[in-house]
Amino acid sequence: MLTIDPPKRFLFGPGPTQVEPRVYAAMSQPVVGYLDPYFFELADHVKKGLQTVFGTANEMTLALSGTGSAGMEAAVSNFVPAGSKFAVFVGGYFAERLCEMGHRHGANVVRLDKPWGEAATDEEARAFILKERPATVAYVHAETSTGVLQGGRAICEAAHEVGALVIADCVTSLGGVKIGVDETGIDIAYSCTQKGLSCPPGLSPFTASARAVERMQARKQPNTVWYLDLALLNDYYGPAHRYHHTAPISNFYALREGLALIAEEGVGTRWARHLANHTLLVDGLEGMGLTMHVAPGFRIPHLNTVCVPEGVEDLAVRKRLLTDYGIEIAGGFGPLAGKIFRIGLMGPLSTPDHTKFFLDAFGKALR
Amino acid sequence: MLTIDPPKRFLFGPGPTQVEPRVYAAMSQPVVGYLDPYFFELADHVKKGLQTVFGTANEMTLALSGTGSAGMEAAVSNFVPAGSKFAVFVGGYFAERLCEMGHRHGANVVRLDKPWGEAATDEEARAFILKERPATVAYVHAETSTGVLQGGRAICEAAHEVGALVIADCVTSLGGVKIGVDETGIDIAYSCTQKGLSCPPGLSPFTASARAVERMQARKQPNTVWYLDLALLNDYYGPAHRYHHTAPISNFYALREGLALIAEEGVGTRWARHLANHTLLVDGLEGMGLTMHVAPGFRIPHLNTVCVPEGVEDLAVRKRLLTDYGIEIAGGFGPLAGKIFRIGLMGPLSTPDHTKFFLDAFGKALR
Repeated sequence: MLTIDPPKRFLFGPGPTQVEPRVYAAMSQPVVGYLDPYFFELADHVKKGLQTVFGTANEMTLALSGTGSAGMEAAVSNFVPAGSKFAVFVGGYFAERLCEMGHRHGANVVRLDKPWGEAATDEEARAFILKERPATVAYVHAETSTGVLQGGRAICEAAHEVGALVIADCVTSLGGVKIGVDETGIDIAYSCTQKGLSCPPGLSPFTASARAVERMQARKQPNTVWYLDLALLNDYYGPAHRYHHTAPISNFYALREGLALIAEEGVGTRWARHLANHTLLVDGLEGMGLTMHVAPGFRIPHLNTVCVPEGVEDLAVRKRLLTDYGIEIAGGFGPLAGKIFRIGLMGPLSTPDHTKFFLDAFGKALR
Repeated sequence: MLTIDPPKRFLFGPGPTQVEPRVYAAMSQPVVGYLDPYFFELADHVKKGLQTVFGTANEMTLALSGTGSAGMEAAVSNFVPAGSKFAVFVGGYFAERLCEMGHRHGANVVRLDKPWGEAATDEEARAFILKERPATVAYVHAETSTGVLQGGRAICEAAHEVGALVIADCVTSLGGVKIGVDETGIDIAYSCTQKGLSCPPGLSPFTASARAVERMQARKQPNTVWYLDLALLNDYYGPAHRYHHTAPISNFYALREGLALIAEEGVGTRWARHLANHTLLVDGLEGMGLTMHVAPGFRIPHLNTVCVPEGVEDLAVRKRLLTDYGIEIAGGFGPLAGKIFRIGLMGPLSTPDHTKFFLDAFGKALR
């Protein structure tokens, strides 16, 4: 008899999202040691699976032992040395967090601000970077707090012209929409496991280009954060297998299985599925007279932000959804508190049936 | 059909150690959101369970979203400000790591060195602290790399006389042997889940005294490491429930269940069980003509270090154990490489039957 008995939710929020039964089964397989040959075999499978979803051939591709925020801290602490100029595209909460981390790690943070719900245009991106000439640039590919998908090509092009590295926050995008790390020119990308990869939280997929690794190795001061020092992590996951820390092995089992499920479906098919059900959802929401917060062409397909209609109390609707249907969605925060609903349609829930089920429940909860 | 199929090991190493079936079952329960009322209920149970095993009434008692090394980094980054004097008792690998983190975070690190396998005496501890008058002191309660249990009472007493905070690394001790955080006078303690608590790795139990929290709140600079900033984590786990990051929910399920199992057995009974089987193991090893690395009275009961006999090749023995019996143990490293075996007897494996099974296999593998 277990002590815990969590309620069964439909996770239609921004994450954690619904987990596949096979992933749960994998996670409860018996633990092996952190130097067991089986573990490194597994870590290698995880690396290959992550290369596919990230769209990269980067040798340094791994899962960090922390959540998505640890990935952000790893990106900033390894690639934004104290005293260097760090240019951030800000249009939501997670970009603000990048700035905060930059400040804490002693960088000279400069920012291009956009209203929460808009992306920077190619011209704005280019002008900002050429003017600032930073050492590192960061943008949030899929900004969970607003629902905006920010394209990275113009950012990467301009950044490389001035010799800057580019960090892309892919916490919400990985697995749900194409990133194309190599194609876009992204140097450093990080994510989480509990959104587009349909696994429980606990690991942070991470990738860095050869150019970024070279820059990191040329640092005069080691990373302040020992736990997230990629040079040390590389010695552990690389052929040397030099002990660093005990990786969360069960979470690796889960991620390995989640990535295998994606490979079985085909990553392109998965992205197309998320886009198709996104269209279905948006049509349904607009059909109910609701307005999307983000303009077409800039929407994250699997994390939808819709405006709270005049006279409707955000919290009451979310409570009704949870109580009557076991459905979790999220509200807005910061400048968007009380103004938007955030609806995730990811992994096992991104199907026409689940979309219809959600729309029906949401319509009733709004009344 | 799962993609993964890990080998079934008997984890007689220093960790990860054998996990209880109920813990695996708990971990595969459906995930809930990080703001779900159920999650905070769960986090509260985890807090209470950790207070019991740590032996503390500290309000700030929680599980950090990383492994034991993240706990160490949280201790150093929150309680050892740059420029302050940090006194470390060094007699093994993990104490060295504390020094390394201290350096990285800009502290003035001073150390009392002992050979790997010896503890500092009360007189040595007192003299060192009174001479150095540091702002923070750190020692490793159970040094996994050597098998030494370092008493903390004299350290804490002297440290408090000079107004210093005391950090105790309890990565290997928590759950396997009494710590008595409040009784000993420890200000900050951290641990892991995959050793004495018999859970998979992924979380770091952490506790800090009111005095330590006060000192932390008086800092002029925030913690460099946003991910491990206890002030922010307190806002999330405290009544405000202000979002910080998405906690690894499945690992919380596991830890909750693991702590429930300990409560059912009774924590005192558990410690006594580990001690009794330790005695059985040591008797068996000595009966085979082997020599323990650590003097009686200073041994960690559930992590035993025994000298590799003359003419025996450490690695060959460990390979034989793994191949013929599915048994994992560990070797020594640093100055103890090739010189000791490290044998864990923890949780479900700390029984007379398992001890006998191990001794029998070990005896054969040594031949």
